[in-house]
Amino acid sequence: MEVSVAKGQIIKGKPVADEMSENLIKEVNELSKEGIIPKLSILRVGEKANDLAYERGALKKCETIGIETEVTVLDEDVTQEQYIEALQKLNDDPKVNGILTFRPLPKGIDEEVIKHVIAPEKDVDCFNPLNTAKVMEGDKTGFPPCTPTAVVEILKHYNVDLNGANVAVLGRSMVVGKPVSMLLLGENATVNICHSRTKNLAEVTSKADILVAAVGRARMVTPEYIKEGAVVIDVGINAKPEGGGICGDVDTDAVVEKASMITPVPAGVGSVTTSVLAKHVIKACKLQNNK
Amino acid sequence: MEVSVAKGQIIKGKPVADEMSENLIKEVNELSKEGIIPKLSILRVGEKANDLAYERGALKKCETIGIETEVTVLDEDVTQEQYIEALQKLNDDPKVNGILTFRPLPKGIDEEVIKHVIAPEKDVDCFNPLNTAKVMEGDKTGFPPCTPTAVVEILKHYNVDLNGANVAVLGRSMVVGKPVSMLLLGENATVNICHSRTKNLAEVTSKADILVAAVGRARMVTPEYIKEGAVVIDVGINAKPEGGGICGDVDTDAVVEKASMITPVPAGVGSVTTSVLAKHVIKACKLQNNK
Repeated sequence: MEVSVAKGQIIKGKPVADEMSENLIKEVNELSKEGIIPKLSILRVGEKANDLAYERGALKKCETIGIETEVTVLDEDVTQEQYIEALQKLNDDPKVNGILTFRPLPKGIDEEVIKHVIAPEKDVDCFNPLNTAKVMEGDKTGFPPCTPTAVVEILKHYNVDLNGANVAVLGRSMVVGKPVSMLLLGENATVNICHSRTKNLAEVTSKADILVAAVGRARMVTPEYIKEGAVVIDVGINAKPEGGGICGDVDTDAVVEKASMITPVPAGVGSVTTSVLAKHVIKACKLQNNK
Repeated sequence: MEVSVAKGQIIKGKPVADEMSENLIKEVNELSKEGIIPKLSILRVGEKANDLAYERGALKKCETIGIETEVTVLDEDVTQEQYIEALQKLNDDPKVNGILTFRPLPKGIDEEVIKHVIAPEKDVDCFNPLNTAKVMEGDKTGFPPCTPTAVVEILKHYNVDLNGANVAVLGRSMVVGKPVSMLLLGENATVNICHSRTKNLAEVTSKADILVAAVGRARMVTPEYIKEGAVVIDVGINAKPEGGGICGDVDTDAVVEKASMITPVPAGVGSVTTSVLAKHVIKACKLQNNK
């Protein structure tokens, strides 16, 4: 006799992004009645493929929502002084509400210097340490980085109860692990921050109701890492070991049988980040206009 | 037949503080050979009993170690402008290496403003958000708050292996819970941040090899919160419910039978914080003198 086992649901990013867009369009319409148009300015150095791909997505998202955009492109051999000058110009431009810089910055430009230059009130992807501090403090006036914020947006969209939930965050980077932990704490989750040095890692993560995987290792999260019925958010973006395309940190095909919900890669978290970016630009615009 | 059970060891703060003092005195002696004397400046408003008690301890500790001190006392009805002026004066004084302000500040003085005023390189107890960001980033050039740092000093002094250790932090305040979690992550511990909303709290914390209690509720941590043989660090300072003196967040008498090591209250973590303060003043002095 075969027992039928409920298979987990693949939860995509698109419905989350679509719902966010819908709400953001309304906000932009409200602002436009007062003659205010939110504007994102992108500062890019050179023509890195990843930067260009993200930029295309961001521009398209902003266009859909009604956010103005502009892109400043600097030569790869730009000096730190020139970079600061370009950034300062965007800081000073009252029409620019949000600034997105691509990191890592090229050699010769010291991120430790630049991060203090970007105006914190226009810093929509958490480059300036004043925004980092706000993430830790749970101060909602700041701008947490877009990717960890996308994780929270997805969980909320799919009505995952975070209050008191037992979450394991796999990874402790400043890009995802630490900020997502702080954001989830702000939602009253209990957050267990695990990483490469964690002893009995699979045993630890398999106790969690929600697992956020952000380690950057292709498909390392296999079923033994997962509690039966857990919600799994896969933040990894890795080259497929067999070549051709990307995959997440989770072995999705194997884990989907055990999880209740799981985000795919691609088409999961990555589909929501530009919506968060747009949301932050509008938030910045409102704060700057005392709305 | 009775089975004898090993009772946990009460681990006091004093031996930790004494060892730290010994090392710090050496550092001060080295600096004095070059004519450098570290200096702490305390900025206090009014005569709150808690502030005065901490100040006495800090001054005594600094004297023992050879750190110069000065105290500026402002009237309780000081304006924000006057407070900023006094703080700015300390920022600008090249002889002052570290500045300690007492918080909470009196009504009428906005901490959200003042925290940006204190020079980050003299901010030895993590008031400025630039130091908060460094705590989250694990950037060792900053100054984490003294109390969570004291927790790590105690664990290291008593040779508790933090690498991969399974730690539960009970409490998520910016004073202790969050920063101590970040510091422990920096020591490669796995950190489970628990709090009032955590479901089955005792069950969760009783899985941990190390428990750091920082909730501010007198003796709420009873034996069922503790794993057999766990190390327990009690950061709580509460009025005894029965009156007369202070007690921690842990019911020490009950828990000591189950723990392997446990810090007492008083004479535990609180005995180490001024040593951390002194250590930070010397670190600030060295950084400011390029040592």
